[in-house]
Amino acid sequence: MSKEKIILGIDPGTRCTGYGIISAQANSIKPLDFGAIRPPPKASSGKRYLVIFNAIETLMDTYKPEMVAVESQFVHKNVASAMKLGMARAMVILAAERREIPLFEYTPKKAKLAVTGSGASTKEQVQKMIQLLLALPELPQPEDAADALALALCHAHTLR
Amino acid sequence: MSKEKIILGIDPGTRCTGYGIISAQANSIKPLDFGAIRPPPKASSGKRYLVIFNAIETLMDTYKPEMVAVESQFVHKNVASAMKLGMARAMVILAAERREIPLFEYTPKKAKLAVTGSGASTKEQVQKMIQLLLALPELPQPEDAADALALALCHAHTLR
Repeated sequence: MSKEKIILGIDPGTRCTGYGIISAQANSIKPLDFGAIRPPPKASSGKRYLVIFNAIETLMDTYKPEMVAVESQFVHKNVASAMKLGMARAMVILAAERREIPLFEYTPKKAKLAVTGSGASTKEQVQKMIQLLLALPELPQPEDAADALALALCHAHTLR
Repeated sequence: MSKEKIILGIDPGTRCTGYGIISAQANSIKPLDFGAIRPPPKASSGKRYLVIFNAIETLMDTYKPEMVAVESQFVHKNVASAMKLGMARAMVILAAERREIPLFEYTPKKAKLAVTGSGASTKEQVQKMIQLLLALPELPQPEDAADALALALCHAHTLR
């Protein structure tokens, strides 16, 4: 991995979709941006999906990532929750596909393992390791943004 | 309902998404177009969602429907199937939301009831009634297109 690679990590959710963008090059990984997309909670579900879709398109157009790492869909006990999550993931998949950006899926466990060395680490342990690995001045917030950065870092590791 | 209303009915599915467009005015309902979107079965899931999304956007831009009627999500026993269906529905919801076209959801039972008088009618009974109601020269094919026309007709009934 000699050339710089921009990787966009996304942890999708209908209430909060975390994102994290890193630049990975040889042994250096730099954070470019991270945060969360929070559609108005009282908006219709259609409106909320549009907010997520537009925000992801804007991130892609701003940072021009060459790869997207997204949390893979795990099977929820609650079908209604699984469906909502699926809809939020669909926005990511569609936005990437429209730009022909390759998309890679990782389980939460694999992303945790990649940054903390344990697939069972807590949200806070993930935040602390992300802070350390990316030399951030403080803990990355919210947790969903840290999870998105973990996904991006997890993908960066596979490029080595 | 004195003014003509264009209604787009959609029966979403990842393998086959049926669509039906009608023009409803007072006591006259005319079919404008119907058919099915079939993404290449061997394409990646992302590519298939993009094909569905682009086709729906093209239908909306061509016929300028004022309302969209879509099959409501029913709870599948199979969560994986529910998720795939949810992704296809997400394409419809997003395309409508991008154009601010109001979207209405109906259960398959309600759509059948509206066209055949029975919520338990067979696919073929629905096709025959649609043929009759829209004075089509032959049975509307495929079944998913007939189901989409039934959704559009179901919504037209609510406007009376």
